[in-house]
Amino acid sequence: MKQETAVSPAADLVEYYGKAASDVYFQRAQKTLAGAHVDAAVAMDFFSSKAGVLCGVDEAVRLLREILQEGDEAYAVPEGEPMGLKETVLRVRAPYSHFGVYETALLGMMSSCSGWATAAREIVEEANGKRVISFGARHVHPLIGPVMEYSAVIGGCAGCATPLGAQLAGLLGASGTMPHAMILLFGDTVKAAQAFDEHMPDDVLRIVLVDTFKDEAEESLRVAEALGKRLRGVRLDTPGERGGVTVDLVKEVRARLDLAGFEHVGIFISGGLDATRIREFEAAKSPIHSYGVGMAISSAPPIAFTADIKEINGKPMTKRGRIPGAAPNPRLQRVI
Amino acid sequence: MKQETAVSPAADLVEYYGKAASDVYFQRAQKTLAGAHVDAAVAMDFFSSKAGVLCGVDEAVRLLREILQEGDEAYAVPEGEPMGLKETVLRVRAPYSHFGVYETALLGMMSSCSGWATAAREIVEEANGKRVISFGARHVHPLIGPVMEYSAVIGGCAGCATPLGAQLAGLLGASGTMPHAMILLFGDTVKAAQAFDEHMPDDVLRIVLVDTFKDEAEESLRVAEALGKRLRGVRLDTPGERGGVTVDLVKEVRARLDLAGFEHVGIFISGGLDATRIREFEAAKSPIHSYGVGMAISSAPPIAFTADIKEINGKPMTKRGRIPGAAPNPRLQRVI
Amino acid sequence: MKQETAVSPAADLVEYYGKAASDVYFQRAQKTLAGAHVDAAVAMDFFSSKAGVLCGVDEAVRLLREILQEGDEAYAVPEGEPMGLKETVLRVRAPYSHFGVYETALLGMMSSCSGWATAAREIVEEANGKRVISFGARHVHPLIGPVMEYSAVIGGCAGCATPLGAQLAGLLGASGTMPHAMILLFGDTVKAAQAFDEHMPDDVLRIVLVDTFKDEAEESLRVAEALGKRLRGVRLDTPGERGGVTVDLVKEVRARLDLAGFEHVGIFISGGLDATRIREFEAAKSPIHSYGVGMAISSAPPIAFTADIKEINGKPMTKRGRIPGAAPNPRLQRVI
Amino acid sequence: MKQETAVSPAADLVEYYGKAASDVYFQRAQKTLAGAHVDAAVAMDFFSSKAGVLCGVDEAVRLLREILQEGDEAYAVPEGEPMGLKETVLRVRAPYSHFGVYETALLGMMSSCSGWATAAREIVEEANGKRVISFGARHVHPLIGPVMEYSAVIGGCAGCATPLGAQLAGLLGASGTMPHAMILLFGDTVKAAQAFDEHMPDDVLRIVLVDTFKDEAEESLRVAEALGKRLRGVRLDTPGERGGVTVDLVKEVRARLDLAGFEHVGIFISGGLDATRIREFEAAKSPIHSYGVGMAISSAPPIAFTADIKEINGKPMTKRGRIPGAAPNPRLQRVI
Amino acid sequence: MKQETAVSPAADLVEYYGKAASDVYFQRAQKTLAGAHVDAAVAMDFFSSKAGVLCGVDEAVRLLREILQEGDEAYAVPEGEPMGLKETVLRVRAPYSHFGVYETALLGMMSSCSGWATAAREIVEEANGKRVISFGARHVHPLIGPVMEYSAVIGGCAGCATPLGAQLAGLLGASGTMPHAMILLFGDTVKAAQAFDEHMPDDVLRIVLVDTFKDEAEESLRVAEALGKRLRGVRLDTPGERGGVTVDLVKEVRARLDLAGFEHVGIFISGGLDATRIREFEAAKSPIHSYGVGMAISSAPPIAFTADIKEINGKPMTKRGRIPGAAPNPRLQRVI
Amino acid sequence: MKQETAVSPAADLVEYYGKAASDVYFQRAQKTLAGAHVDAAVAMDFFSSKAGVLCGVDEAVRLLREILQEGDEAYAVPEGEPMGLKETVLRVRAPYSHFGVYETALLGMMSSCSGWATAAREIVEEANGKRVISFGARHVHPLIGPVMEYSAVIGGCAGCATPLGAQLAGLLGASGTMPHAMILLFGDTVKAAQAFDEHMPDDVLRIVLVDTFKDEAEESLRVAEALGKRLRGVRLDTPGERGGVTVDLVKEVRARLDLAGFEHVGIFISGGLDATRIREFEAAKSPIHSYGVGMAISSAPPIAFTADIKEINGKPMTKRGRIPGAAPNPRLQRVI
Repeated sequence: MKQETAVSPAADLVEYYGKAASDVYFQRAQKTLAGAHVDAAVAMDFFSSKAGVLCGVDEAVRLLREILQEGDEAYAVPEGEPMGLKETVLRVRAPYSHFGVYETALLGMMSSCSGWATAAREIVEEANGKRVISFGARHVHPLIGPVMEYSAVIGGCAGCATPLGAQLAGLLGASGTMPHAMILLFGDTVKAAQAFDEHMPDDVLRIVLVDTFKDEAEESLRVAEALGKRLRGVRLDTPGERGGVTVDLVKEVRARLDLAGFEHVGIFISGGLDATRIREFEAAKSPIHSYGVGMAISSAPPIAFTADIKEINGKPMTKRGRIPGAAPNPRLQRVI
Repeated sequence: MKQETAVSPAADLVEYYGKAASDVYFQRAQKTLAGAHVDAAVAMDFFSSKAGVLCGVDEAVRLLREILQEGDEAYAVPEGEPMGLKETVLRVRAPYSHFGVYETALLGMMSSCSGWATAAREIVEEANGKRVISFGARHVHPLIGPVMEYSAVIGGCAGCATPLGAQLAGLLGASGTMPHAMILLFGDTVKAAQAFDEHMPDDVLRIVLVDTFKDEAEESLRVAEALGKRLRGVRLDTPGERGGVTVDLVKEVRARLDLAGFEHVGIFISGGLDATRIREFEAAKSPIHSYGVGMAISSAPPIAFTADIKEINGKPMTKRGRIPGAAPNPRLQRVI
Repeated sequence: MKQETAVSPAADLVEYYGKAASDVYFQRAQKTLAGAHVDAAVAMDFFSSKAGVLCGVDEAVRLLREILQEGDEAYAVPEGEPMGLKETVLRVRAPYSHFGVYETALLGMMSSCSGWATAAREIVEEANGKRVISFGARHVHPLIGPVMEYSAVIGGCAGCATPLGAQLAGLLGASGTMPHAMILLFGDTVKAAQAFDEHMPDDVLRIVLVDTFKDEAEESLRVAEALGKRLRGVRLDTPGERGGVTVDLVKEVRARLDLAGFEHVGIFISGGLDATRIREFEAAKSPIHSYGVGMAISSAPPIAFTADIKEINGKPMTKRGRIPGAAPNPRLQRVI
Repeated sequence: MKQETAVSPAADLVEYYGKAASDVYFQRAQKTLAGAHVDAAVAMDFFSSKAGVLCGVDEAVRLLREILQEGDEAYAVPEGEPMGLKETVLRVRAPYSHFGVYETALLGMMSSCSGWATAAREIVEEANGKRVISFGARHVHPLIGPVMEYSAVIGGCAGCATPLGAQLAGLLGASGTMPHAMILLFGDTVKAAQAFDEHMPDDVLRIVLVDTFKDEAEESLRVAEALGKRLRGVRLDTPGERGGVTVDLVKEVRARLDLAGFEHVGIFISGGLDATRIREFEAAKSPIHSYGVGMAISSAPPIAFTADIKEINGKPMTKRGRIPGAAPNPRLQRVI
Repeated sequence: MKQETAVSPAADLVEYYGKAASDVYFQRAQKTLAGAHVDAAVAMDFFSSKAGVLCGVDEAVRLLREILQEGDEAYAVPEGEPMGLKETVLRVRAPYSHFGVYETALLGMMSSCSGWATAAREIVEEANGKRVISFGARHVHPLIGPVMEYSAVIGGCAGCATPLGAQLAGLLGASGTMPHAMILLFGDTVKAAQAFDEHMPDDVLRIVLVDTFKDEAEESLRVAEALGKRLRGVRLDTPGERGGVTVDLVKEVRARLDLAGFEHVGIFISGGLDATRIREFEAAKSPIHSYGVGMAISSAPPIAFTADIKEINGKPMTKRGRIPGAAPNPRLQRVI
Repeated sequence: MKQETAVSPAADLVEYYGKAASDVYFQRAQKTLAGAHVDAAVAMDFFSSKAGVLCGVDEAVRLLREILQEGDEAYAVPEGEPMGLKETVLRVRAPYSHFGVYETALLGMMSSCSGWATAAREIVEEANGKRVISFGARHVHPLIGPVMEYSAVIGGCAGCATPLGAQLAGLLGASGTMPHAMILLFGDTVKAAQAFDEHMPDDVLRIVLVDTFKDEAEESLRVAEALGKRLRGVRLDTPGERGGVTVDLVKEVRARLDLAGFEHVGIFISGGLDATRIREFEAAKSPIHSYGVGMAISSAPPIAFTADIKEINGKPMTKRGRIPGAAPNPRLQRVI
């Protein structure tokens, strides 16, 4: 599949956005207006239904660059900035016929991405500067997984799990340790850790998952003894059936590693983490190196965006219930 | 963009799912296992973290067909069926090396789609047999909009807004009336309605949006007088700033249309509808023809799915916290 | 009906208060005490069951002036002052036989009036200095409507709807715009407005009700165009079935009037307003000229008052559960 | 004061209702319509904002009889009947000019009275057939006290405290025992009881208030010994400072009276009673003879009534937000 | 310490109850009454402040047997029976001087014991017939620990932890497995289990605690392999820091034991269990053999008992607030 | 019964603590370890499950003095000090065989006593320096009543009701007034008060209970007139059936006593007092001399204590879920 969202959409994607993925009533409006020879220069404002972190507007502008024509204009608030409730974050000034059918795509890009970026921001702010890694690609359809991860990084995550997500976000590479499946196939965590150490390139961190077979504290000590100084950290991903990862568990594993002389081994945790739980760990000053977050970001609901015509041929005009005229917003920058 | 999800994924999509969109640690596990010459026949069970409507499993099976090899097996619960909490809905029996790196894609397909289908089912069940149309493509990224709409139809919606969504779901065509923008460009609802009537093919229903300029009851009567028997219905989409669509408004518009002899004109409503509000309309026996639903379906969170190895080389085996052995489930059908 | 409450009660009212409207057990006590030749100089304290605005005490004192005799004394806190919980606001020092049967009337005057004045004060304090007009006479029996309106003005209202209410409160005249009924009879808001303008004396403000037939914003513009500079304001009284009057509606009507050059037209709102809703409008800095308040004042519950004998023949004495002796209160002023 | 509400309003009351106590905007509408020579036969429906007991409609009809003219019609639901939410309980068919200015009075009569009757009904239904007496005249302005008591009887009370209230309601006489003040003046409950017994006519029940000086149980026994078989009952009105009247207190007083052979002495209670507390007494099968209720009835808020024009010159017509046309209601009876 | 509560209190205990442990004001009353030569035959009723399970009355009766004299009488509801709110469960008919100073002791025996028995009953009723063992002696002062355990058995527990508790309750012996301390001293659970098996008599059940060093599932298998058929069960007492004992943990341990062929090994759980948690286990049909309960029984608050004189020299008499006369109760049986 | 807890436990109590009242599994562990010739020097830490006031540790140390041997060590936080959540308040360093079987007793002493002391402290802190007397011995089994009272005094109570409780706490004597039973036997409160005055030694305060027969205010005046300057105070213990003791009652009794010239008579209250109610009295600046508190202290739940081995033969070691090694606590003082 062609995925060129970081540069400019391929021609077939532009066509897809304007036809296959566009609400059919925009296409019917286009046909009706053309049949009646009605068109006009409009100012259309895009704004969100709640405050948050704006994301997806860069991709929207890239699409507009493909479809707007000479003399048309667009203004936008920059990607990753905070946005206020109903604040205009994108404005298009152009004949309606130039871009009307793309409204579905333009709104959708900002809705999904801002939802994920806003959730990520809320979580990252609880982490007190510690690294938060997005691990939730598995909870969204793979067509959109890398875009979700890009949005999480815009929201403040330090890393993400898929190679394309990392590439879209301009990171050096994706982040990850090892799955339970691999350890099960080796039948023993220490054997799995040794094989991983042998076959991975040096730039892959040696972080070993320690909850597959044995008590986490016991397994951490076994792995630390086996890999010694090469071990960068252990990952705790204790399942809910075993109480999940808790402040007490982290404290104890840290204490037992230290007692055995393994102060160099970091602790990485994952499993059902969200803003509330990270706040608890930080409030308890848990000796955690970084957090892996899944559903709390990937299941964040989209933030609904709306596009309203506010001027027609230079005159304030809008539908009932809204204020006519393009609302002044000094944060808008000319982008086209 | 190539979108062949209803048939079988194109080759470049398969590669995309296994590399660009796959969690990197599965790729590292693949390399480590290969380097250590470790592999085994496994039974891997896929199950969800809550009850709902299973969706996306058909697409998952299409992907498995591309990657599994002779002798491998797969079993699934049928698309659109209810699924229980932690019930195994997909089982793969194959050497781990044949499909391990696709876990991200397989889980993601079912997570997103089941989330949307489950939300749609809940809403449709409140509607007492009236048609519910999915109008929420605009709230999700356009790469995934048609898939969301397909899932909404699997969940019970009678129609959806995008042409590709309709095609994936096997519908005759997409559904839609007219946007506020078109009416604003015409400057008058009656003029817009007349042009729409003139330029649309006969199979497009004449349903006119009546809240753009005037009071809905007044506008409904104006439109009904202008289009007469050709008018199929009016759509109420009153903005929240004007109180939204309410039971009282629908009742009054119905009464005024009837008093004027327009019993043939149906009432279609949209705007922030969800299960709770539809239940209220139905409890009040509102004379509504069909419901247009957006965010309540399109913003539904994905339902997390998990994949666990349950057997290795025929022996029950799994990680700590889970029950070893493939759980018997008579609802699973052999699909590969 | 003779209504002279602002001066002194007519003789037949005094008799009415002491017989027809007096609790019969006071009349029986009077007869028993007289039969047994028992009487005594008492100090009787009147106090309320909760804090609020004292109202009705002036009328009570006027009644006492008619019934007390030479040498009797009365003390009161001034009308319209705040009163504390259980604070003595009226004290009578006289033989019990002089006034015992009027206890029902004295308590009732203060109970009803203080209830209304207290509610009005609470609302007026939310309005940030904007005018609040009492419009609730229709919710109370007409025998008491003007007294309710008098109390609302004591509580802080700038105007009220009935001529006698205005007279009792010392206002120049009653306040009011036009009812829906008049507009319905004219069949069009503009025609009604023009007739109103033609037939009303100049001192009646031209404020036109704009929600009878059409969308309020549309109708406001039609009326403003018709009356021009003579139009003082529009009144929004949108029914609940249409969402009621909201912050957004006011903001939009203001914007559309201003865009059309009608900055001189004020906005008056009414319909289910109470302290909470006025606080919301003021918090949103709504461009509102004045508030019309009905039920929130007129349905305010009375505040129960109690009268206790505290001294008999100069000695502290009272019933079980109360503190004997007239409680010192420097706010009491000699009134008789 | 002339109070003829049970027969027909005196001429000066009719004028008072149409001028002094009428919302001024009805009078302005009257003048405008007359100036513009606009009038029409209308059907005006009166309905309440919540379900309850209809009261005050008889008085409203008596007023209409004074003002309607030959050929005009009125229909009403009978006084004291239950009424539904928004059910039309009064309909006038007449030229608007005949009755428009009386809308304030007509609504107000039904609002206040229905509020009180509804509260009384709710309380009486909890009392399991025991007598409930309205004692709350003291909490409302004396101009309206007897009307409140009339409404309480319509709602189901067996008696009330003021002579005029009793007369309006068609009772033989008002109900009452003796006030604390009388006992304080006698200085001893037994002396007060003996004087009361001596000076009251035989048809006044000998019920003695027993909480003024001593413990209620002790005082009950003293009084019973003093009056013997002539004592009909004791009234408990224990103040909140002493815990109020409770189930336990009633039970104990009953037991101590019975132990001493005074089974014939009934127990009457009062003091802050409402539906909830009466339910508690009845649930505990308290041996209570009758309940005296004050604030729970007299402070009941009015129930807002609304009057809407529903037809003009025979054609369905009404304001925005309402259903045009007089709503059919088989419970309406022709009264004029 | 002499502990003869199951037979009759030793002489020094009787003296202790009447002096050292008796409220001093009873002793002062005794001296005052004697000095004034006042005494009388009384009926004193003992009743509780809430419903529950009566316990401690047997001990109270044993004390009364030591102190009452010829001709005195006592009546009681049997030990372990349900008791109602304020139901008389013990009645003494005797001269007050015979037993007045023992009121503190008599009340205290029933208060503490009924509190514990009531809590135990509530828990046992949730356990669906499975054995509940009282393990909470460690949470109460050791002077009272065995009495608490006796009460728990009266409430329905099948066993308790202290030898004297078991003896008082008539059980064959105390219940217990092994403490963490013992396993820590052995340094390995298997070694500890083998030593326990070697040194314990045959009538001690081989139940091994499996959460000291390793994951519970892993340790259960190790122990089962070591002891084979001699192993009666494993005890799960997982600390809160590791998530506590959960439904999922029990289910998994059961499954792994069964897969390995150890169906004969039972599962015993403890650690913070109360009625709510036992209900959850039973609702989930957890394969649990028996429950060990501590704090939920041992920290149960005492149930306050009161003793009231109800008759003096055969006449009904009591203090204010209570009903005079001994209340009839057919459940009372003559015990002295 | 031998009760020497304030000095050192008698030999038979030591044996009782180690056998009859010890959890049997400690005795089995002792036997198993001895059989296997396993023992070790351990550090065992005792800590509580919530913050509070430490009490019972003195008694625990007295027990340890009887059982530890030469070279063994113990450290403790002082009796009556605040203790933190999980803070080590007692540490024993000795071979496990020296003290293992006494764990039940050691924990139980601190659990019960700290529960009572903590509740007392919370209540005393609300009383603003006024005296709080523990009156709750009657709610706990008499074997433990004096220990409860000792704990209440450690928590801050100024007095207690039982002679042994007072002795354990080092007070001069127990506190108490007179019971209702004594007054009932005299048949009149004044007679009872006079006899009490005659027969009690001078050091017993003349405080008379005034709610037995008459209204408290009336009875207070009668008693004050009878005893004059010898009367130190009245006690209000009004039963709940009569509303209990309230702020208003105290205020009125104070006012009536003062009006009659009895300013020297103090007011003592009791009856269902707890921290919340005392806070209300103090907030109202009630003129109260001292508070008698029962259930609010005596029914306080024990605070669970835990004992963990933290070192074995000098090496950090503990069970899963806990941090190995004796936690440093500078508040610990060497006591053995």
